[in-house]
Amino acid sequence: MSQLPILVQKYGGTSVGSTDRIKAVAERIASYVRNGHKLVVVVSAMGKTTDELVRLAYEITAHPHKREMDMLLSTGEQVSIALLAMALHEIGVSAVSFTAAQVHIKTDQNFSNARIEKIETDRLLKAFQSYDVCIVAGFQGVDADWNITTLGRGGSDTSAVALAAALKASECEIFTDVDGVYTADPNKVPRARKLDQIAYDEMLELASLGAGVLHSRAVEFAKKYNVRIHVRSSFNFTKGTQVVPEEEIMEKLLVTGVTLKNDEARVSVQEVPDRPGIAAELFTALAEKNINVDIIVQSTGQDKKNTISFTVPMGDVQTAQEVIENVIQKWEAGTLSIDTEIAVVSAVGVGMKSHSGIAAKMFQVLADHGINIEMITTSEIKISCVIAKKHGEEALRLIHSIFDLDAPQG
Amino acid sequence: MSQLPILVQKYGGTSVGSTDRIKAVAERIASYVRNGHKLVVVVSAMGKTTDELVRLAYEITAHPHKREMDMLLSTGEQVSIALLAMALHEIGVSAVSFTAAQVHIKTDQNFSNARIEKIETDRLLKAFQSYDVCIVAGFQGVDADWNITTLGRGGSDTSAVALAAALKASECEIFTDVDGVYTADPNKVPRARKLDQIAYDEMLELASLGAGVLHSRAVEFAKKYNVRIHVRSSFNFTKGTQVVPEEEIMEKLLVTGVTLKNDEARVSVQEVPDRPGIAAELFTALAEKNINVDIIVQSTGQDKKNTISFTVPMGDVQTAQEVIENVIQKWEAGTLSIDTEIAVVSAVGVGMKSHSGIAAKMFQVLADHGINIEMITTSEIKISCVIAKKHGEEALRLIHSIFDLDAPQG
Repeated sequence: MSQLPILVQKYGGTSVGSTDRIKAVAERIASYVRNGHKLVVVVSAMGKTTDELVRLAYEITAHPHKREMDMLLSTGEQVSIALLAMALHEIGVSAVSFTAAQVHIKTDQNFSNARIEKIETDRLLKAFQSYDVCIVAGFQGVDADWNITTLGRGGSDTSAVALAAALKASECEIFTDVDGVYTADPNKVPRARKLDQIAYDEMLELASLGAGVLHSRAVEFAKKYNVRIHVRSSFNFTKGTQVVPEEEIMEKLLVTGVTLKNDEARVSVQEVPDRPGIAAELFTALAEKNINVDIIVQSTGQDKKNTISFTVPMGDVQTAQEVIENVIQKWEAGTLSIDTEIAVVSAVGVGMKSHSGIAAKMFQVLADHGINIEMITTSEIKISCVIAKKHGEEALRLIHSIFDLDAPQG
Repeated sequence: MSQLPILVQKYGGTSVGSTDRIKAVAERIASYVRNGHKLVVVVSAMGKTTDELVRLAYEITAHPHKREMDMLLSTGEQVSIALLAMALHEIGVSAVSFTAAQVHIKTDQNFSNARIEKIETDRLLKAFQSYDVCIVAGFQGVDADWNITTLGRGGSDTSAVALAAALKASECEIFTDVDGVYTADPNKVPRARKLDQIAYDEMLELASLGAGVLHSRAVEFAKKYNVRIHVRSSFNFTKGTQVVPEEEIMEKLLVTGVTLKNDEARVSVQEVPDRPGIAAELFTALAEKNINVDIIVQSTGQDKKNTISFTVPMGDVQTAQEVIENVIQKWEAGTLSIDTEIAVVSAVGVGMKSHSGIAAKMFQVLADHGINIEMITTSEIKISCVIAKKHGEEALRLIHSIFDLDAPQG
């Protein structure tokens, strides 16, 4: 008996934001079932449900225990799966809903940010003998003791990709409120265009640079288990963006996306004594306070004194300042300066691996327009520049143009 | 090592109706923990949560499948247990929350009205090695396939009593928004008073007569497993009403409670042919439409024609009428009359078993005040009379007085 492969689809919070939206999602699913598909459908909590639950928790305590927070928040997805099942029944589709516990999405015990370790597919495969659609609560899992865990931000994407991997599904469709992955944020770059394809590593860099479409962990999972992701809108039937292995990319672009981050600050520690272990001491102190340090540059002056500069998220500036002042006091050396008027502009593309001169081209266009580069960091497929905040959006558009990403004028 | 017995407490929806109320419940629980107790605390969904979830379901479909309805509704209790655990942590009490699945409250597969079959106490007993308070979601269970079930109206009471039975707890305290069980509804009988004790069977009769304090199934469970229930208010520290085995009742009353039901109608079928199986045919037809028939009286006239009268809930009158008209047509005999202007007034008490004359006393007081009795039904511990609706509250107060239930004038 030949059987179409199981499809895995994920619908995000705005896609199931109201009972009317849930009915629309049910209609979409029904169209796949009519074409002979069996589907696993992963759903997030309805719209603002999670925020509302968080609000209740903070009415009770400023420090909710993570295990209980996961117990609380996981109810949001459970409501969605039940309502979606009802909406499918209403239009004659055989469907059944499952919590993560019921389909054994096993995670570690890291409450609020758990990692999926294993999914047993027995229950789902058995359910497909009676139902065309199995609806699974996203964002949640269970640890070895059946405590409910949650997977952190964007966790439903990870649930969907992990289920696709476990079921050896042909594709994982991630339905969201945008049409796909764009070469840049269309709000800032009017000529940004939707990508047909993007490589896992590019998507990972873009995700870590704040492109909110897909969460990094879901992409890592997809890369590891070779799951093709299709990011698309649940509000129309337009083809979206395929996230695929690099070797499958048809149209190789030098740069596939450019991003702008405005919520970072540059911290500089000057006159740092030039002795071994001094940088380690500084960054260990910062790590102990859970401060995410990003771009780091160290330079040595003529007098053998060093300057260490790095960026931190704006929200961590005050804590970072306190930590560094303690360290400086201990060293009996060093001065601190903080600049919050910066932006980080980045270009990402696997094409960089095989083409030289991309960084030079980026620096040149900024120089040509009088934009000074304060810090630079590069990876195999990414170049980031720290510039003055006031030049951020101009720089973004210039780089978007120089790498031929602009959509045709229309 | 001597150890205080585990206490089981249940807090209803109004008792945990807001985050402030949840904090108040946490303070109450903390006072027991400070006295050295370990507690299992069963909670219902917050206030109107269940109504809100039901509303969402009916926005999607007029006929929600029961399995999915249980999946949906069980989230209400899960929110409550997580929030109560947080509130206890906030005031330094070690507590952990569990869903019914996590503590293996196993039920049959009768979704929306499941019966508890078994509770495994391993997880709870193990949790008490680390925590003073285990919070368990009420109203829910899991069937043999780990599908989530719910226990029907008043299900959280049943959860609490079943846990008390499984843990051999000394007592099950049911916290609610009233001070206990009253001799009559204080809104209708101003001189009604709170009972210190009531026997299981009396409580069962009162529950089935519409006294909403405790659900019948919880009382049946308590009787079967000999669990003492203490019904009391979560809004004060007054002693409530103990529901206990009959032999433990200290002050034996002839009658412990009187009730009035205004939402029944009397259906009479006259001129019913006198042949075997005719009543069975009628009531089978009604049962097939799930109509709950209550008081039944059959009388035979001089002409060998029978009259069958019975009461049905007001909401079932129209369906009952259709069913009966079909039956009459088939019989080619009989006439139907329906009276919606009736009330059912009842007296309940285990004292009736050993005292004669109670029914006579009740009939006499009604007769003395010109109240005609239209139908009578009795059980070992209950007498019910159908009277005209307009006399309902007067009859209730008269019977309350004649059996010496009135509180002293204050």
